[in-house]
Amino acid sequence: MKRAIVLAVPMGDPAGIGPEIVLKSVAHGDLAQKATLVIVGDKFLYEKTASDCAVQYICDEVVEDDTSCEKAVEKGLDVVFYHLPLVDLDKFAYGKISGMCGNAAYQAIAKAVSLIRNTIAHALVTPPLHKESLRASGIASIGHTEILGELTGTANPVTMFQTLTLKVFFMTRHLSLRAACDAVTYDRVLSFIRDCDTITRSNAFAMDKPLAVAGLNPHCGEHGLFGDEEIKAVEPAVSAAQKEGIAVIGPIGADSVFHQGKIGKYRAVLSLYHDQGHIATKTLDFERTISVTWGLPFLRTSVDHGTAYDIAGKGIASSIGMTEALLVAMHHISSEQGAL
Amino acid sequence: MKRAIVLAVPMGDPAGIGPEIVLKSVAHGDLAQKATLVIVGDKFLYEKTASDCAVQYICDEVVEDDTSCEKAVEKGLDVVFYHLPLVDLDKFAYGKISGMCGNAAYQAIAKAVSLIRNTIAHALVTPPLHKESLRASGIASIGHTEILGELTGTANPVTMFQTLTLKVFFMTRHLSLRAACDAVTYDRVLSFIRDCDTITRSNAFAMDKPLAVAGLNPHCGEHGLFGDEEIKAVEPAVSAAQKEGIAVIGPIGADSVFHQGKIGKYRAVLSLYHDQGHIATKTLDFERTISVTWGLPFLRTSVDHGTAYDIAGKGIASSIGMTEALLVAMHHISSEQGAL
Repeated sequence: MKRAIVLAVPMGDPAGIGPEIVLKSVAHGDLAQKATLVIVGDKFLYEKTASDCAVQYICDEVVEDDTSCEKAVEKGLDVVFYHLPLVDLDKFAYGKISGMCGNAAYQAIAKAVSLIRNTIAHALVTPPLHKESLRASGIASIGHTEILGELTGTANPVTMFQTLTLKVFFMTRHLSLRAACDAVTYDRVLSFIRDCDTITRSNAFAMDKPLAVAGLNPHCGEHGLFGDEEIKAVEPAVSAAQKEGIAVIGPIGADSVFHQGKIGKYRAVLSLYHDQGHIATKTLDFERTISVTWGLPFLRTSVDHGTAYDIAGKGIASSIGMTEALLVAMHHISSEQGAL
Repeated sequence: MKRAIVLAVPMGDPAGIGPEIVLKSVAHGDLAQKATLVIVGDKFLYEKTASDCAVQYICDEVVEDDTSCEKAVEKGLDVVFYHLPLVDLDKFAYGKISGMCGNAAYQAIAKAVSLIRNTIAHALVTPPLHKESLRASGIASIGHTEILGELTGTANPVTMFQTLTLKVFFMTRHLSLRAACDAVTYDRVLSFIRDCDTITRSNAFAMDKPLAVAGLNPHCGEHGLFGDEEIKAVEPAVSAAQKEGIAVIGPIGADSVFHQGKIGKYRAVLSLYHDQGHIATKTLDFERTISVTWGLPFLRTSVDHGTAYDIAGKGIASSIGMTEALLVAMHHISSEQGAL
């Protein structure tokens, strides 16, 4: 019988550590019992990686088309490999930028997405891509979020970081710190609070607890003594959101709010700039910091590290992040299903 | 025989949780065996607190002047109480701002400092003060660093945060985030690196490892793509410091450098603004984040929390930070003495 949770896992950039950490996570005993994992990629590349990295290659069935995949999934198997002949092993080398690998990574994502759209799988869990290999293959998008936005016609996917119990959203990301200060306006903060509220009205979040908005300045500016963005933008936006019925508090000093989030005081913490939330999550537990993308037609979790070309094929990559990304996807789906 | 480590511990603001957490730390079995603790404050207030908070009041000897204190310390006792009649218990109330309590806190610090200057004690470990009570007593300085700077004639004490293995310095502190961006200049970064290098040439630091400077912008601005302070100020300052023979690297992305500091890659991490280092240390372990002040004629460690007037006298305050501050002072002193 089909499992309640089926995760589609593309291989990531095959010249990086993606296939190795997928294999290691699959070999992690607990995971397969909780879900069916559909591993999408080139099975010969996976066999080579298993051998080079001395990792077990666990596979219940290999499929090469959607119909066979659906049948295999309906049997409730632990691990199904969806083989796509994408990698010419004669031309393959670990740690090398190549259009072949960029294209392989892209095709695996596209297939995984189509499995979800065809209701064969429920969610997507992704190992890392390599920007340069994607570019070498002629793909314009520079990362997962752009590719997934394009494949699903989603304009504004929203990224959340999750590290153990701490869940963090980002109002801005790849802006200079000065530009991030400029972005702290009443309108933008209010819109950010509304978006995060919509996303977190889900059983996967502690819905009985408020969202918390971090301050921009030290100690939230101490009543305007150093910085007035709290007075001019954040406080009024939080008040307006509260009047709309949103459970949100803040601004709260950034040196306290993430700790409070970690010990379970909030549904999620809303950070105002990239490093604010990144420092909190990644200092707390670097390897267990994973990324969750909201606003797509399905759930997507991801590792938050790169392809690590320098250690690819050596068997020394840590799969902690990949395993965590799989576990978080399982947790979110089962929370949602529990709510039905 | 006098112990190798003698710590002077003033009581902090008596209306706050200071006396309670000092008593709890003293009752912590391990501490007293490693050092002599000279607790400076009003013994009747301490007795009242012990009773109200149901904490053990451990005391080997009470002294009321420096000569008796020196003799008691020379016996190598665990805990010596230096009594100063500072608090009129008839007028005392927990959690209330009062000039009496502000003055008591100040006098206890002044006495503790004089014990160190007279070589009776080696270092200072401080519980929290209350700004408003200090002000009510007519003292202009608003906190420990200012009071200690004044009492010792030190112009620029330098604060370091320590959380477990992570040691963090701050280039700026109570500035708006915009002003903190403005402060990232070549001269200031270079001078900051030099200061931190001087301070960390001590056995209490991993001297075989480099200092690491955090970047200001996300991913250090990705070669100027978002923010150019790294290119204009931080990189040239790090290069100049390296040419002077200082072991320093950076800028390193703020989302990685604190994690790397935590796992022992660096002598210390140099953060460029208040929240950068505060988020890292306090999210990692809020209660074990303690403050170390360098540049005074002696070592000073401190809790990094406030007086918590709302829970004072109730017996529910956590002494984890106070105990950690005592342990870190002991560790630094014994590392230094080991080097002699």
